[in-house]
Amino acid sequence: MTKHVWHEHPSDTLRVEEGFRLADVDADSTPGFPHGKSHGEKELAKRRELLGDLQERLYAASRVGDDTDAVLLVLQAMDSAGKGGIVRHVVGGVDPQGVELAAFKAPTDEERAHDFLWRVEKRLPQRGFIGVFDRSHYEDVLIGRVRALASADEIERRYGAIREFEQKVAASGIRLVKVMLHISRDEQKARLMERLDRPDKHWKYNPGDVDERMLWDDYMQAYQTVFDRTSTTDAPWHVVPANHKWYARLAVQELLISALEGIDPQWPAADFDVEAEKKRLAAS
Amino acid sequence: MTKHVWHEHPSDTLRVEEGFRLADVDADSTPGFPHGKSHGEKELAKRRELLGDLQERLYAASRVGDDTDAVLLVLQAMDSAGKGGIVRHVVGGVDPQGVELAAFKAPTDEERAHDFLWRVEKRLPQRGFIGVFDRSHYEDVLIGRVRALASADEIERRYGAIREFEQKVAASGIRLVKVMLHISRDEQKARLMERLDRPDKHWKYNPGDVDERMLWDDYMQAYQTVFDRTSTTDAPWHVVPANHKWYARLAVQELLISALEGIDPQWPAADFDVEAEKKRLAAS
Repeated sequence: MTKHVWHEHPSDTLRVEEGFRLADVDADSTPGFPHGKSHGEKELAKRRELLGDLQERLYAASRVGDDTDAVLLVLQAMDSAGKGGIVRHVVGGVDPQGVELAAFKAPTDEERAHDFLWRVEKRLPQRGFIGVFDRSHYEDVLIGRVRALASADEIERRYGAIREFEQKVAASGIRLVKVMLHISRDEQKARLMERLDRPDKHWKYNPGDVDERMLWDDYMQAYQTVFDRTSTTDAPWHVVPANHKWYARLAVQELLISALEGIDPQWPAADFDVEAEKKRLAAS
Repeated sequence: MTKHVWHEHPSDTLRVEEGFRLADVDADSTPGFPHGKSHGEKELAKRRELLGDLQERLYAASRVGDDTDAVLLVLQAMDSAGKGGIVRHVVGGVDPQGVELAAFKAPTDEERAHDFLWRVEKRLPQRGFIGVFDRSHYEDVLIGRVRALASADEIERRYGAIREFEQKVAASGIRLVKVMLHISRDEQKARLMERLDRPDKHWKYNPGDVDERMLWDDYMQAYQTVFDRTSTTDAPWHVVPANHKWYARLAVQELLISALEGIDPQWPAADFDVEAEKKRLAAS
């Protein structure tokens, strides 16, 4: 943690604890970081090296058969909240060779024929990797609930299934970093409007986005239920105010750094005789 | 092409044409780029934006159902020649959401039970993506040949199978950019020695690397045969002198830019009524 810059660490201030109310979160706020955009962007660039270094150590440790951990960043948000920007500007700062990215779209027929966790389990990161879920199994209790894509009983069952699943994932050595990027309804309108105003952004716009937007309050309620039911000690949620993109990126970067520092990966010791190899190489 | 910086374009100077002799390539040279390292590194940073922009257009075009192409960068090299650096510093400059990276290791039992192209075909990039093969089906005629992992007849068969496969891949709309990073034997020794000298690099060292190094001339012969047999109009090889890492990165970046410029992807037109959506959004 960079104590001189963050007054309070995002792991603490943004973490969903008992009694958390999404409705009380100000999407415009920048908790723990009482500085502006230019300072924030400078800090993002500065911390990129540390994140990259930690990722390389994690990867290195996994290559020599140690029992290494992995990290899994789960990203959820309303449309245009900035998931793509997190992937590009935060995850994009580390070596692509150490990242496994999975974007979950509407399930295929094959996926639908299985339990909702089936396709998710298959995309869990290998040890030594940083996995990123762009949307996730939470869609099955978000749009799944709001659009009644499954029965009420089935939706109800899923919260427990998710808790058990994530407990198992955490126990297997995968650190879960669950993030909801939280924008305000007005901010979403402005961002979608910008996509309509700019021909080079039209491809990012989908008329269905407005359909979901009309159900804003239902989605907020569904998120609140997700937080109430699935924010656990092993797999806590973090709600990141995201009206300021620079803040959201900086905060998620810091959450990833924290997760990696928690693992504290070390350069692995050589599993060969270094001096003997030097001689063999010199003679080759 | 940035004509003012490159005197000759790498697509031309580095391309394997009839009569090409690997033995004649100076791994220390910087063909077409008569400037030094600092100029090269500045240029790499400068061109990153263009590569990122082209990648985003390619991706965007593929999202709206156009018949979009893809790009596949095939990387081959002796150990320590800098494949990882290409992935990190060239590919790492574009949005990870548009990249599909496949690292081919020694085949698994399941893979070995299939034809050598089976596992490769499965990792071809989706349309709209930049695929990267870190090693590839060429291992099956490189280490495969040098170590006699298959019969002479089978190795012989593979050159034809590769030509046909790549022709089919190219016809499907995937632009192949095949690159061999070429370092000298002395440079490899220095790089491997550095890995042995630095405890934080030990994990990158494998005693097997020296075993392969002892077969250097056999490998160069196997590469020469690869170039003779599989450099085609649709899927030409490029041999990139790689003793200077900055040059190799810059050249590969330029080859990727060229491939994308050849596709010339355009922002797709909206497949919805923009004005109607503006009204609907405004009212939401």
